[in-house]
Amino acid sequence: MQKQFGLGLIGTGFMGECHALAFSAAPAVFGLPSVRMEIVADIDQRAADAAARRFGFARATTDWQALVADPAVDIVAITAPNVLHKHMALAAIAAGKHIYCEKPMALSLDDARTMAAAAQARGVKTLVGYNYMRSPAIALTRKLIEDGEIGSITYFRGLHEEDYMADASTPFSWRCRRDQAGSGTLGDMGSHIISLALTLLGPVESVSADIATVITERPMPAAGGARESRTEAVAVTEGVMAPVENEDIAHTLLRFSRGCVGTLTTSRVAWGRKNRLAFEIFGSKGSIVFDQERFNELQLFTRDGVAPALNGFRTILTGPAHPPYGQFSPAAGHGIGFNDLKIIEVAHLLAALANDTPLYPSFADALQVETVITGMLQSADTRQWVNLAQL
Amino acid sequence: MQKQFGLGLIGTGFMGECHALAFSAAPAVFGLPSVRMEIVADIDQRAADAAARRFGFARATTDWQALVADPAVDIVAITAPNVLHKHMALAAIAAGKHIYCEKPMALSLDDARTMAAAAQARGVKTLVGYNYMRSPAIALTRKLIEDGEIGSITYFRGLHEEDYMADASTPFSWRCRRDQAGSGTLGDMGSHIISLALTLLGPVESVSADIATVITERPMPAAGGARESRTEAVAVTEGVMAPVENEDIAHTLLRFSRGCVGTLTTSRVAWGRKNRLAFEIFGSKGSIVFDQERFNELQLFTRDGVAPALNGFRTILTGPAHPPYGQFSPAAGHGIGFNDLKIIEVAHLLAALANDTPLYPSFADALQVETVITGMLQSADTRQWVNLAQL
Amino acid sequence: MQKQFGLGLIGTGFMGECHALAFSAAPAVFGLPSVRMEIVADIDQRAADAAARRFGFARATTDWQALVADPAVDIVAITAPNVLHKHMALAAIAAGKHIYCEKPMALSLDDARTMAAAAQARGVKTLVGYNYMRSPAIALTRKLIEDGEIGSITYFRGLHEEDYMADASTPFSWRCRRDQAGSGTLGDMGSHIISLALTLLGPVESVSADIATVITERPMPAAGGARESRTEAVAVTEGVMAPVENEDIAHTLLRFSRGCVGTLTTSRVAWGRKNRLAFEIFGSKGSIVFDQERFNELQLFTRDGVAPALNGFRTILTGPAHPPYGQFSPAAGHGIGFNDLKIIEVAHLLAALANDTPLYPSFADALQVETVITGMLQSADTRQWVNLAQL
Amino acid sequence: MQKQFGLGLIGTGFMGECHALAFSAAPAVFGLPSVRMEIVADIDQRAADAAARRFGFARATTDWQALVADPAVDIVAITAPNVLHKHMALAAIAAGKHIYCEKPMALSLDDARTMAAAAQARGVKTLVGYNYMRSPAIALTRKLIEDGEIGSITYFRGLHEEDYMADASTPFSWRCRRDQAGSGTLGDMGSHIISLALTLLGPVESVSADIATVITERPMPAAGGARESRTEAVAVTEGVMAPVENEDIAHTLLRFSRGCVGTLTTSRVAWGRKNRLAFEIFGSKGSIVFDQERFNELQLFTRDGVAPALNGFRTILTGPAHPPYGQFSPAAGHGIGFNDLKIIEVAHLLAALANDTPLYPSFADALQVETVITGMLQSADTRQWVNLAQL
Repeated sequence: MQKQFGLGLIGTGFMGECHALAFSAAPAVFGLPSVRMEIVADIDQRAADAAARRFGFARATTDWQALVADPAVDIVAITAPNVLHKHMALAAIAAGKHIYCEKPMALSLDDARTMAAAAQARGVKTLVGYNYMRSPAIALTRKLIEDGEIGSITYFRGLHEEDYMADASTPFSWRCRRDQAGSGTLGDMGSHIISLALTLLGPVESVSADIATVITERPMPAAGGARESRTEAVAVTEGVMAPVENEDIAHTLLRFSRGCVGTLTTSRVAWGRKNRLAFEIFGSKGSIVFDQERFNELQLFTRDGVAPALNGFRTILTGPAHPPYGQFSPAAGHGIGFNDLKIIEVAHLLAALANDTPLYPSFADALQVETVITGMLQSADTRQWVNLAQL
Repeated sequence: MQKQFGLGLIGTGFMGECHALAFSAAPAVFGLPSVRMEIVADIDQRAADAAARRFGFARATTDWQALVADPAVDIVAITAPNVLHKHMALAAIAAGKHIYCEKPMALSLDDARTMAAAAQARGVKTLVGYNYMRSPAIALTRKLIEDGEIGSITYFRGLHEEDYMADASTPFSWRCRRDQAGSGTLGDMGSHIISLALTLLGPVESVSADIATVITERPMPAAGGARESRTEAVAVTEGVMAPVENEDIAHTLLRFSRGCVGTLTTSRVAWGRKNRLAFEIFGSKGSIVFDQERFNELQLFTRDGVAPALNGFRTILTGPAHPPYGQFSPAAGHGIGFNDLKIIEVAHLLAALANDTPLYPSFADALQVETVITGMLQSADTRQWVNLAQL
Repeated sequence: MQKQFGLGLIGTGFMGECHALAFSAAPAVFGLPSVRMEIVADIDQRAADAAARRFGFARATTDWQALVADPAVDIVAITAPNVLHKHMALAAIAAGKHIYCEKPMALSLDDARTMAAAAQARGVKTLVGYNYMRSPAIALTRKLIEDGEIGSITYFRGLHEEDYMADASTPFSWRCRRDQAGSGTLGDMGSHIISLALTLLGPVESVSADIATVITERPMPAAGGARESRTEAVAVTEGVMAPVENEDIAHTLLRFSRGCVGTLTTSRVAWGRKNRLAFEIFGSKGSIVFDQERFNELQLFTRDGVAPALNGFRTILTGPAHPPYGQFSPAAGHGIGFNDLKIIEVAHLLAALANDTPLYPSFADALQVETVITGMLQSADTRQWVNLAQL
Repeated sequence: MQKQFGLGLIGTGFMGECHALAFSAAPAVFGLPSVRMEIVADIDQRAADAAARRFGFARATTDWQALVADPAVDIVAITAPNVLHKHMALAAIAAGKHIYCEKPMALSLDDARTMAAAAQARGVKTLVGYNYMRSPAIALTRKLIEDGEIGSITYFRGLHEEDYMADASTPFSWRCRRDQAGSGTLGDMGSHIISLALTLLGPVESVSADIATVITERPMPAAGGARESRTEAVAVTEGVMAPVENEDIAHTLLRFSRGCVGTLTTSRVAWGRKNRLAFEIFGSKGSIVFDQERFNELQLFTRDGVAPALNGFRTILTGPAHPPYGQFSPAAGHGIGFNDLKIIEVAHLLAALANDTPLYPSFADALQVETVITGMLQSADTRQWVNLAQL
């Protein structure tokens, strides 16, 4: 019989809930051994207790260090604020635990390097939670590229655009502070499109970037509004404005090591966009177009196989022919959801731990994402191309 | 503390798995008491055993009658072949169990009437699993209509089109037999669009329908291929063809009791369509357009509120503003999936049982769907308008 | 050298202007002999004079009968109100002139029959102006069907929906009167989708139809507002309402002589739709989807030639590979416009007259459109299927 | 009575024909005095003769210098190969003629400056033919921005992508030569998206660009294949390859003088794209999305005026409310075509000449487009940001 893993979950916000649901469901969906829900930690004991009841954890605590150290815990899932990722991860590594950490991995390249090195030294497995990388459409994109279906890649355009900070009256939050969030849209959303670019096309060699902060100050939320919420209204202390310390928009030119070029944009002020994580990839024989807002579809154009007069982009509805869709439904067009993406990620984690196979993206892989972000910020600052190998 | 319900699940195919996952996840997603996974039944003991292990049922059996009679079972979930729905439901009703039955409720109007009457007489709660009726976009559509956002309804166009039987080489199956499936595309898919029409616009008064079978015979599958599969290739006994006994396509004109008119189409031979359960609803002040293949979106046009020169259909991406989306994700554009729709349905079931509130659609409600189907078949046969009140 | 034709144009409204522009441009676009712009007639002399100056007609008149009789006129183009089509056409036929008449050909089936018989007896050529039938995408659809690209046709769904009468405050006009317009949306817009259905799929055998008038009375326009306008505001005589005499919406079931079934909808109260002349055609090997609002595109799904896992509807952008697009532009994706469709129609007229080849759709062909409309109205009245052969 | 202008047209290829048609039709469409079709010139006398017959020019010649000098010619329309634009324009300016010149204006910034200065010194009017700038949707975009409908602009993304050189077997042509075409995709297509960017958002201050040539050599066409054709097959001299001298792809970061940022891409190797001249413009209150492949539509999102839960991008179908659409059709949804865009351009030319009002874009305006192109090429070469004021 396969090994059963014990989970320690840190954080009970949106992503904490998402993790808990995914660890509950992934075993049945993918036919894996169930996970022991051992401990859940939150800074707020009541939140931890509520999550324990809701998701079936045996224990609830405010002491994440105790969680990390607990012998019943095999996997530490980190969904706490980004500023804590490093400390928690290093503690978990020290305790010899496997780590499933939300993105962004760290607030600085130095921190990311420290974490990756520590994990490697201690021999624990790590996985950074980018959500989107193993969806059926993204897996299909990867396969199409690997199979040469669109020939050799000529160029790439990537986006991640949302409007959750587009309103100037949206209050100041930790996301606007360098000490809490590091970069702005780059770490929050840019990490998604960068991770997809790296997954699909391999390493980036150099960047020339530009950034902009278009809402330079925001109203301070009232006391008690500290817990970030994208959806709840937050009362505002009238008249008190705080300066926004990081970028709303980032653009970059890219050169990939494989020889192709590209551009990449991320923005948190794109009115009307809710989760437009999108790309277009052009090759010598075809093109692929994807948009996460319609992530059960993929647009494909191939030069070959269709008479030119009858050719055009075709809209593929993902289905059982596009793993791991078939784990969720036996028929195309039914669609999977965001939470299913997290189930896919957790299933990858559990399978790799059970079989002792590599996890992707590990801390070492996520380090490449952080390198691109750091290179972009440096390029925007110096207004020079930055060769990432020199960072 | 809230009552915890015990589940008996009959059937472990696609929909059986879907039920099991939904009963596991719905309590955590919606903050309801968890469900006791008591018994799972399948005609094949090994399938039942496997499902029990995978989904955590305490017991597995091939005896659905024992399941129905078991005192630990409060809810009987019926996902067995359609031909068995009546027998299982009547047994469950007799045992005083609540029923969650997959659609179509029955193979004939008489059977449906018997079932609805029995449930009412015994006072058990019933729910028919139409999957799509409580999705955020459909709930929003319902609210828009009720709020008068598009004025009084003028007409409706509904579709459910798929291509799973479009290939003439797709083998004969129970779906092609009157004694096993009753109608063809009408019961299988028509029930979905009819149920949406009734939910959104109320009762249908009369119909004039036409049906067609375009692939009149199909190759018999080889022995062992009896278990239907939409995705697996099935070996074919060469040279043996079986006549298809029910319709591939059905069209109808509709008159609704509320006074509006409409059309409805369902087809299982619509090449390229995977789950095109779609409608357009026109009113005196606006229009709504929906397509299940993109069910996290809704197209809305309203005459009022926007300058005519800047007006057009707007694409609403469902989000937390459209319950129950917020149970799954706090941000629009992330999307829910088909399995989440089943979670919504199960949460409705559990909440209604806990609070002793009405379930919709019950057997009595589903009877209206069966009435429309029966009216359409009769109209197609007699080539006359059929007044549904006279059935 | 090729014969040059002399044109007499009756009517200077929207369609009159459209004709004049098309007769001016078609020869250069298609490399045909130019047309002599002989006479333009309008009930208003100043309008006729203005049109003569603008479009280069040699003479302007209020006397359409003189125009018809003029020996310099070879082609009589009729764009006057529908109620006059019959009289003008019969006069032109009597004078031995070729006729290019706007749709609908006539207000009644009897009139249409009279006109078609007269034209045949006199041996003049006739063309009814349906605008859309020879666009590149429609021509491609026709070719795809003829070439068997989507196999044998299984069913059809056709629409023509607009919102130009959707507002209850839009004034009463001649379009609402039986004696002026005959039917409502059926003659105005239904004739378009019916003509496409007949062109693409051949004769209709029988229909079961339903109609509805949802705005039963409309405000009378003030004196002087008699000239219909879809775009100009018309002053309203307060308090005076006039009953609408014909249908806003029409639906029908169809059986085609070739054996396939279908549905067809036309509505002038479809909020948000501007020119949604659309169809979906399903066949045993594929499907075609078209929408006039995006008429430089065609959606095609074919079972064959593409791996199932990579298949989907493909969006074909029309181009030089789709005649007669190449007459307008040497590159796909540039697009032609509505006025270009009229140029195509006129070029067909001029070429057929020059070469003495058949025109399509002639009065005899348009008679089939009128037959379907008449059958639909009769079916809606009797609530019976109507066999068109018996009309 | 208004002045009538005499036209001298140089070149009878695709754009020459397009000009001739537009000069014929624009007066009637826009109610302007007709144009005297005086002389048409082509290097090939037979082509000139054919064009004269087809479009009604009084004379045909191979001597463009005689055309330019002819006293009957008021407007010189230049559609000859790009390498000749400078010589022809300078001669026309010297002769005091107004000029309507196809883009790109010149092969180098120096040439463009010489031409703009000469035109200004001589006081003739000039117009560069960018085709797309006055379409209804673009005019609407401009108005929306000017009216503040989307607030202050935050960023821009522009594209022009086609696939006409995507196939490596497409033969070498003058477009691949620096001495004939100057830049590659930048001058040919980039000039379109750059001109739109400047028209909509004003001057560009600085750029950081990257270019790539992905098909580095192409087969030489056989003798006689010199006349470029996007559509005709050209025989190939086997085994002889010629090096491509200019870029297939260009990307740039942009900073606009108004303070917003952006990116811009142009490519002639984008498989599946036929005329994807597209942009997205984000502002503090909304967003606009446009794609020339569907240029009768505009996507608009505005924060204000619509309840957030019912908000989304709306698809505006252009119509009479969006000038100059109403010149072509009185109803939205009918659509205009590429050739109509040229009619709009010519009408602007004729009206400005008649009323002695400014033309846009003149040589002075087009010079700004050439400056951006030159800046991009220099930036790509030096791998530095280039401040355009220093060119």
